[in-house]
Parts: sequence; C-alpha cells; structure tokens
Amino acid sequence: MALIVQKYGGSSVADAESIKRVAKRIAEAKRAGNDVVVVVSAMGDTTDELIDLAQQITPIPPQREMDILLTAGERISMSLLAMAITNLGVRAKSFTGQQAGVITDAVHGKARIVDVVPTRVRETVEKGQVAIVAGFQGVTQHTNDVTTLGRGGSDTTAVALAAGLSADVCEIYTDVDGVFTADPRIVPSARKIHRVTYEEMLDLAASGAKILALRCVEYARRYAVPLHVRSSFTGRDGTWVADLPPEGEEDMEQPIIAGVAHDASEAKITVVGVPDVPGTAARIFEVVAAADVNIDMIVQNVSAAKTGLTDISFTLPSTDGAKATAALAATQEEIGFESVQYDDQIGKLALVGAGMKSHPGVSAKLFGALRDAGINIEMITTSEIRVSVVTRADQLADAVRAVHTAFGLDGDGEAVVYAGTGR
Amino acid sequence: MALIVQKYGGSSVADAESIKRVAKRIAEAKRAGNDVVVVVSAMGDTTDELIDLAQQITPIPPQREMDILLTAGERISMSLLAMAITNLGVRAKSFTGQQAGVITDAVHGKARIVDVVPTRVRETVEKGQVAIVAGFQGVTQHTNDVTTLGRGGSDTTAVALAAGLSADVCEIYTDVDGVFTADPRIVPSARKIHRVTYEEMLDLAASGAKILALRCVEYARRYAVPLHVRSSFTGRDGTWVADLPPEGEEDMEQPIIAGVAHDASEAKITVVGVPDVPGTAARIFEVVAAADVNIDMIVQNVSAAKTGLTDISFTLPSTDGAKATAALAATQEEIGFESVQYDDQIGKLALVGAGMKSHPGVSAKLFGALRDAGINIEMITTSEIRVSVVTRADQLADAVRAVHTAFGLDGDGEAVVYAGTGR
Repeated sequence: MALIVQKYGGSSVADAESIKRVAKRIAEAKRAGNDVVVVVSAMGDTTDELIDLAQQITPIPPQREMDILLTAGERISMSLLAMAITNLGVRAKSFTGQQAGVITDAVHGKARIVDVVPTRVRETVEKGQVAIVAGFQGVTQHTNDVTTLGRGGSDTTAVALAAGLSADVCEIYTDVDGVFTADPRIVPSARKIHRVTYEEMLDLAASGAKILALRCVEYARRYAVPLHVRSSFTGRDGTWVADLPPEGEEDMEQPIIAGVAHDASEAKITVVGVPDVPGTAARIFEVVAAADVNIDMIVQNVSAAKTGLTDISFTLPSTDGAKATAALAATQEEIGFESVQYDDQIGKLALVGAGMKSHPGVSAKLFGALRDAGINIEMITTSEIRVSVVTRADQLADAVRAVHTAFGLDGDGEAVVYAGTGR
Repeated sequence: MALIVQKYGGSSVADAESIKRVAKRIAEAKRAGNDVVVVVSAMGDTTDELIDLAQQITPIPPQREMDILLTAGERISMSLLAMAITNLGVRAKSFTGQQAGVITDAVHGKARIVDVVPTRVRETVEKGQVAIVAGFQGVTQHTNDVTTLGRGGSDTTAVALAAGLSADVCEIYTDVDGVFTADPRIVPSARKIHRVTYEEMLDLAASGAKILALRCVEYARRYAVPLHVRSSFTGRDGTWVADLPPEGEEDMEQPIIAGVAHDASEAKITVVGVPDVPGTAARIFEVVAAADVNIDMIVQNVSAAKTGLTDISFTLPSTDGAKATAALAATQEEIGFESVQYDDQIGKLALVGAGMKSHPGVSAKLFGALRDAGINIEMITTSEIRVSVVTRADQLADAVRAVHTAFGLDGDGEAVVYAGTGR
C-alpha cells in the first residue's frame, strides 16, 4: 500500500466523459489498496475562456482579480471529479488550494509556494477517502488572498503536496506516454526514456522540453519526490524522474545521453563594436536585466586587436526581443557600441545526459555530427551534463535528427547507449 | 456620505456589457461620496450551466461538491466586476464569502448565515476602495467548507453584510422598478409602492410576490436594515422596505392596503371523512410534515353532527403534491378517513396591509368585490395584516384585478387610499 499523488491536466478532464474516465482510473488506484490524492487542472479551454471574458472587460485586468477569476476553473473541475468518483462508490472530497493548505507568496499570477500544510487532505486520506485538490492555486499567508502559480502550476502543486504528505510517488498524467529522447514530431524514431535524473530533467526542461515545467522538477529534486510522467489515455508505464530507480527495479547502468531537446522560440541579439574595456559587458547585461528580460546563452567574441572593439551575442525569448533592443538602443551613446543586431531566425539544440560528465568526447562527436549534416554552429555553451548549440532556425529539425542518430538514440536500429559501454 | 450596500442579480451582470454598465453605476455612487459595498450573483445562465455539467456526471451529486461547483459562478462575476470598476479609475477588490466573513451552518445547498465578520470588507472600504462580495455563498465555522445559501441567497448575503457593517441602506437592484401593488403582468394599472413595512413585505413575499425572498426580508427586519428595491436599468427611485420613511422624507400616512399578491403554484389537498376526535388533525399534519412538505393554509369544516366526521383541507406547493398524497394514503387505515382529494387547479390571493389592523371592514369589502366579480371563494385565512383566499385557478387573475380596483389601488383613476382617510 502506497500513498500516491496523481495529477491530471486540462486535456485529461476536458469534458464530462473525460472526467468520468479519469474518475475510473482513480477509483481503480484506490481499490488496489493505495491512498490517493489527486491534483487537477481546469477543464480543457476553461482558462482561455475566462481570460477572454476578462479581455472583454479591460485590456489590463488587475492581477489579484485575474487570479480570483482563473481559480474558478479548478473549482469546477475538482468538484465534478469528486462527484464522478463518488458516483463509482468511492468516497471523495474536493479542496481548494486554500483548504488544502497551499501557502504562497503574494506575487499574483506567478506566486511561489512557501509552505504546504495539508492537514485536511491528510485527514481525508486517513478516513479512507480520496482527496481532490485544485492545482495551480494557493493562498497568501497573512491576507488570505487567492493566488495562482503561473506556468506549470498544477504540476508544482502536485509535487509540493507529494512532498508535504511524504507520498511514495507523484504521478503526472498527460497526453503523451512520457519523456522522449527527442520530440517525436521531429524525430519519429525517438524512444520513451525509462528514467532520467532530476538534473537531466532540469536541463531538458530548461532547453525546450515542454513536458514538465522547470520549477516543478526543481521542487521534486529539492524534496526527492519521485515523479512518474505517464499517459492518462493508455495506462502504460511512463518515464520516472528520480535519482534512484523505481522500487523493485535493479539499478540499470545510466545511459550517457538522456535526450536531445530543442527550442525554436528564442532570438539572438548581437551588440556590435563594443569597447573592450572592463565593465562594458556588465553594463550591457544590467541594461537588459533592468528591462526584465531573461537571457539564456552568452558568447563574447575575441577582441579584434587593432580596433579594441569586440562583439557580444546573447539569446533571449523572442517575445522579449523588442523590449531588449529598445533598452539597448537607448544606451548606445553611453556605452559606446556601434550597433545592435536582432535575429529571430535561430534554433537551439541541447544534448543532455548525466553520463557525459565522464565522457569528454561528447562535444566533439556532437560537432562532428552537425558538420556531417552540413549544419553551421553559431553559438556554443556547455555545462557538466549539457552541450547547447545555436543553428539557423530552418536547420534545427535536421540538426536534432542528426544528433539523435549519432548518439544511438533512435529506437529501431542502433542499440541503446549506456555509460560504461565505452561509446 | 453614507455606507451603501448594493446587490446586483444575475440578469444585471449577464455579460461583459452588463458588467460594465453596473460598474459605471457603482463608480458613480462611489464618486458621489459614498462608501460602497457590492454583493453580486453569478452571471446570467452560469448557475444553470454548472448544474447541467453536474447532471452529466451523476444524477445525485454530493451536496458539498455541488456547493463548491456552484460558487465558481460568483467567483467569475465578482472578479470581472472588480476589473470593470478598476478600469473606470475607482479602486475595487473582490472577496469570496469566506474572505468576507460570511459564516454559515453546515447545511449544504441551503445553509443559514450564523455570523458575519466582515473585517476585510470594512478595511477595504476604509481605504476608500469598493468591496465586491460574492453573494449566495459562505463558509462553515469550524471545517472551512464552502456552502451555498439556497433561494434568495444573494439578497440575504447583501442584507447580512449591511447589518454587519451597520450600512445606511441595502439597495437590491433587479430588473423591475420595485414592489408593485399587484403583478403588473396581471394588473396593468398596478402602481409602484413607495414604501412598505417589513411585516407587509413578509406577508407579500409569503403570499407569492417573488421580488424578495422571505428569509432576506426576515433578516432585514431583525436587524432593521432599510432595503431599497430598484431597477438596475432605469436608476429610478424604487420601493423602500423599512418601518420608518427614508431619511429626509416626512412620514406620510401609511395606506391601509400595501398590495395584492397572488400565487398560482399551490395545490389543495382535502382529507374527506376524518373522525372528529381529538388528535386526528394533529396526526394528519404529522404525516405531512414527516414527508418534508411545507403546508400553507389550513381549513377544517364544521363537523357534520350526525356522522361525527369532518373534512380537513390544506394548501401546499403543487410540486409536493404527489409526496403528500402518497404519505397520507399510506396512513388511511390507521387514521380512519374516507379519502384524499387532490386539486391543483387553485389560485391564492392575498390582500396585505398593516393599516387593516384598525379597519375591520377590509375582509367584508374583499368578499364583496369577489362576489360582484362572480368569483367563488373556496378557503379563507386571515392574519392581523393579511386576508388570503383560495379561488379557482382560472379565476385568479380576474380576482386580483377586482380586488386591486375595489381597494383603490389602480394607478390612474381612483385616488390612493391612505389610513386615516376613513375609507
């Protein structure tokens, strides 16, 4: 008997029929002898419909009111799900974020969980009932105001509850079978990954894998909550995110490479002709930070000896492009650079794997694979378990396929690459 | 400068445009120098849509979950309304029943307010902001569960808040101009009533006037909250429900008759051939009460001396007809009556007026008016300020018109009847 936290996203509870199907799965988990806590998102399009309503009222809704509005969505899905489970003869009770003790800071729209006090959830489980908890929402500690957690919020609620309840596993149900070695839409031969470490999953998420939000994985790592990402449609075993293998399994050798992530949503800014004196780079990134823009990769070219000038390039979300270029242009005279170039036709590829720490040939092999495929590399950054490169946007898919094949990740054909095999 | 509680029903906030219109009215009240607290119902059809969703899940949803589901409706309307007001440059904040301190008992679906602790609402008002509060909902004291107040719930929330805040007036905005001397759909010459006492309004509400729920008026009377029932469309002065005239007005003489209410939703049950011995009537009404049926008028005919048998008639909501007749039929042998007759083709008319206490001729005049109109009276009950009669359903409208005219209530033509004029 285990304590399981299950999280179902909006597509899993899109209508009454889907809710009944999810209820059946929950009832089965309960009848199998487990204690079950469920975190649920708003039904399908509810959130978009509510945002649309707000836009009809005002273009700039106050964020506090926006949070109250949006949390109506989970209120609807969670009560309907509790009804559906009860209808199957399993007792169930639903709880808002506030009732479940999800305490957050007061940053409306993207609040961070500061504490979880799931007293009522625990009581409900101890009575043999299923507790349904609204995802994505919490309440501020002192003012009792309703907050939302922003992107990936429901996943984070599930992980935080699992940590607070010392659950055995947090199951994230989604519409795909798990985490893949690459995006199957781009690489049809991509394989489902059986297990990744928290660190690998963090790098995959940071590099464009959308299946789990960064903050949810960070939370899981901090509290060592084993995640099991799986499909709510098939019931198949999915991907485990954990530093140790799932209970009852031998610890297989960890593969060198976990997967290839890609991201086509970034742009590149190059500040051309920057005076190569101490403090100038710092000043440039101060200006960008003051514009509230998060930057990703940074590359500074070698200074051209004759001119005393250098170029600095960095990537950023292309949605922030206008903001950043405007902020830089306003300081051109002060900093003394020649011009700002903006390029949103780039793509980013990241090869992630904890095993590469002890395999120095990984970067060379990656560059070789891209060269053989005729793909030019524009920027490179590396960390202990990741190599990231920037290419032209229209070559990104080819690059992902070439790298996926070169590292033996394709499902049919080459064998799986494990650390220790010497490859 | 006054503290005003305004309540807007679902038809006043049916869509984004309506919400903006209501926001404008609220902003005007605030800019005129008043402190304003607003209670709002769910938008138009939201509640029906949510009930429909629940029915798709299960025919018998748990009432606790139903309450959580339905309260999503006010969450949406209140946050949108706060956005719309803010957009007009007036600061506004919305509060759930729980945040506004509306404490109820734990009877889900028809909870009663046991206390109102509007600390946050008061703080908001003191900061010069408009507080928007979700109607129809509260929270249980110890378990922090969400409850709904049932029929007339939002009106009751508004009155309870007005009492808790010692507001100067509670304005109930609706889609008509106020309380009328009769239903204008039946009596086109019906006049808007300027003021009724709580007692009169209670009797009007109990007799079929649907504009205010009984419990809301009871609450207002208990805490002496002046109610102002008015249209959210016209902005005209409506009807005051209060024992004293509105501030700044002379106390006009109170009319003998406030108005004529009618109700076509009742049925009549006659228990025929009841043994005329002590305790039998009590037993009959015990049986009906055990079936959870509320009865209204009761008439027991004089015992027929020769047989020792009597007939007992009572009225009840026709929706409870089947339940009550079945319960009685099951006890026929035990109680020893001859038969149960059921008649849902009745109509009820009630003449209400505090002034009739000191005017003994009212009943006689009423009966005379009905006789002159050729209408047969089937049952009569009276209280200090009300005379109720039962007629055939198809004569009810004629009866209302005849009585309305006989007591000089018609708008054009006869003068208004005031107590003290001797009429």
